[in-house]
Amino acid sequence: MSLRDDALEMHREKQGKLSVNSKVEIKDKEALSLAYSPGVAEPCKEIYEDERTVFDYTIKSNTVGVITDGSAVLGLGNIGAMASLPVMEGKSALFKNFAGVDSFPLALDTNDVDEIVRTVKLLTPVFGGINLEDISAPRCFEIEERLGRETDIPVFHDDQHGTAIVTLSGLMNALKLTGKSLNQIKVVLNGAGAAGVAIVKLLHSFGVKEMIMCDSRGAIYEGRPNGMNAVKTEVSRFTNHAHKEGELGDVIEDADVFIGVSVAGALTAEMVESMADDPIIFAMANPNPEIMPEDAKAAGALVVGTGRSDFPNQINNVLAFPGIFRGALDVRATHINDEMKKAAVLAIADLIDESDLNSNYVIPEPFNKEVAPNVARAVAKAAMQTGVSRIKVDPDEVYEKARRLTL
Amino acid sequence: MSLRDDALEMHREKQGKLSVNSKVEIKDKEALSLAYSPGVAEPCKEIYEDERTVFDYTIKSNTVGVITDGSAVLGLGNIGAMASLPVMEGKSALFKNFAGVDSFPLALDTNDVDEIVRTVKLLTPVFGGINLEDISAPRCFEIEERLGRETDIPVFHDDQHGTAIVTLSGLMNALKLTGKSLNQIKVVLNGAGAAGVAIVKLLHSFGVKEMIMCDSRGAIYEGRPNGMNAVKTEVSRFTNHAHKEGELGDVIEDADVFIGVSVAGALTAEMVESMADDPIIFAMANPNPEIMPEDAKAAGALVVGTGRSDFPNQINNVLAFPGIFRGALDVRATHINDEMKKAAVLAIADLIDESDLNSNYVIPEPFNKEVAPNVARAVAKAAMQTGVSRIKVDPDEVYEKARRLTL
Repeated sequence: MSLRDDALEMHREKQGKLSVNSKVEIKDKEALSLAYSPGVAEPCKEIYEDERTVFDYTIKSNTVGVITDGSAVLGLGNIGAMASLPVMEGKSALFKNFAGVDSFPLALDTNDVDEIVRTVKLLTPVFGGINLEDISAPRCFEIEERLGRETDIPVFHDDQHGTAIVTLSGLMNALKLTGKSLNQIKVVLNGAGAAGVAIVKLLHSFGVKEMIMCDSRGAIYEGRPNGMNAVKTEVSRFTNHAHKEGELGDVIEDADVFIGVSVAGALTAEMVESMADDPIIFAMANPNPEIMPEDAKAAGALVVGTGRSDFPNQINNVLAFPGIFRGALDVRATHINDEMKKAAVLAIADLIDESDLNSNYVIPEPFNKEVAPNVARAVAKAAMQTGVSRIKVDPDEVYEKARRLTL
Repeated sequence: MSLRDDALEMHREKQGKLSVNSKVEIKDKEALSLAYSPGVAEPCKEIYEDERTVFDYTIKSNTVGVITDGSAVLGLGNIGAMASLPVMEGKSALFKNFAGVDSFPLALDTNDVDEIVRTVKLLTPVFGGINLEDISAPRCFEIEERLGRETDIPVFHDDQHGTAIVTLSGLMNALKLTGKSLNQIKVVLNGAGAAGVAIVKLLHSFGVKEMIMCDSRGAIYEGRPNGMNAVKTEVSRFTNHAHKEGELGDVIEDADVFIGVSVAGALTAEMVESMADDPIIFAMANPNPEIMPEDAKAAGALVVGTGRSDFPNQINNVLAFPGIFRGALDVRATHINDEMKKAAVLAIADLIDESDLNSNYVIPEPFNKEVAPNVARAVAKAAMQTGVSRIKVDPDEVYEKARRLTL
């Protein structure tokens, strides 16, 4: 059978990938009186008196909302809320499998920014965090930014930050093989969607000075007359200081790093050959990368990463989001801030010992069971240090709990 | 320990009563490629091509949204969305325990009717049904009515219809003890909130001709100048044909049946004594009934039912909603219509054999495992007969499945 047949059969046989289970057996009057009327009134009254106790008495402390509008689903595009559900259920399944996080998929039947923001705000009581998923750029930026400001639980758009975090982890390890440091390198990014914008911002916050971002119209520079939006304008202020114009091929010369979140075939062997010594190529277009790894290597690339599991160095978000939410939930965080993201970058990168590091192994494997617990511990610690946690916990206990919950 | 301590301890220890579990283990690349990228794209594409297949490939076919705004929670009143969560989780736990229905609690942080309607509509993609819970009257009527019209999945306000269905089941059985029939009796209802209105409408649809509904201002009659709303006006058109005015005590004379969904102590022994022979009293105020059963009996009542588990004849919604949604989901119903509600009434009433029937046993016990499967079968059958099912199934298979899923 083909992958297509297998996938359809599995989904049909299981009728979806999630179940909502009761942690309490209700088999007699006594159990009923505790879990429901009249006993259930007691935790209600406690929460009414002190809203903070909602974390003690309800599922909020371990539950994330996986929210989409179905506008940018995998490589499928704007297929709508209903058709996006298998992906959202999959995301919830990953949350549970990789970090013991309960989550529920909510695909909203609207593409309107105001309506999405308002709806998510109304839904926050039951959730300890919100994972935004597969919402198209540039709407995703405004939605995440507004929700981050207007709610008191972490809001995280995984397509942006999950990808950025794992990319940067891989880049830091790849650079160790070259002896170059982040503040010396020239990076060219192709693709100015959700992931591209988040990557360029995260690189900037890690001290990368020389970056040029390209979109389908070529290099982005401050004041470019066409095809700009609020986010590209923001990016133009701290990238491409020389205001270089032109296509990808015109600006990639001498770059140390290429990061692609664009389309298959966007990077040619000639472009790789024009880059600086030991170029690092992260070609993450899905399912077919900007350049195939063997072609990049033949053109001189030292390290090649892709989004695919059948090549080395897979840049897979599953290395980031389960541990990030695990850590954020465990300290009852109000936000996921830059320090927490940076902590996640380092926690992932550090999982590869220098002695094991090589050009085909700069990123941990997705099924490395140390990843989520290490990320959770680092994120929890960063949250407490930066004052966005509601409670103090021992970071090592966060690690141990995550280790236990990772299936 | 007290019930209060036990309930708080249980809720704290479990950190809420629900978990969201993955039906698939994702332990290796192959499993990941089926449950998530790239295999997950296949069911997405199928649903995009034919939206009806969403029932085949996702959790929609077995998942209900439990929706509240926290405005009328148990006996606690308007405690808000956050504080209502333990009740909503409890409802979801009952759905699972009593009929294998997956459900997720969503407490909306708004009391605005338009906003609640709009939000629930945006949330419908993932749900096969919506259970409205603890929303105050009269807003609950408009919300349910609009959602019923504007969505294509069943919307059911349990506080209305669940209570009405179980009450009528009990009443039908109680009448068998008196020899009176539904179209001969005079019924007085006290309380014009969600449950009261639903009960009076359901009795009307079952052919009860003589009814008077009272609220805090006394008997409702057509054209009453004060304290009316759209729903009371509607009720006034088919009740109290004699336009009687006055308090409960003034209109209860000669009534065969008293149904209370009001406040403790509203019914006095004198009022019971003024009723017709063999009066039937359903005194459902919580936690303390309109009249205590022993007082009602002493005053001549033949049958007394309450909402409490420590007296005979408990009118408990859990007899209705799990089986109703089980049946509706199994035929992928678009609505829960009157015929389905009537089928549920009869299915519950019929579970007591004439030979077992007595004044202390007119309603099945909540933990009778035959209830939900019988209700599910009857509801599924009625849905198919009235054209609100998307698929045809064998009603006996609905019964068997429910029997298997009832924990």
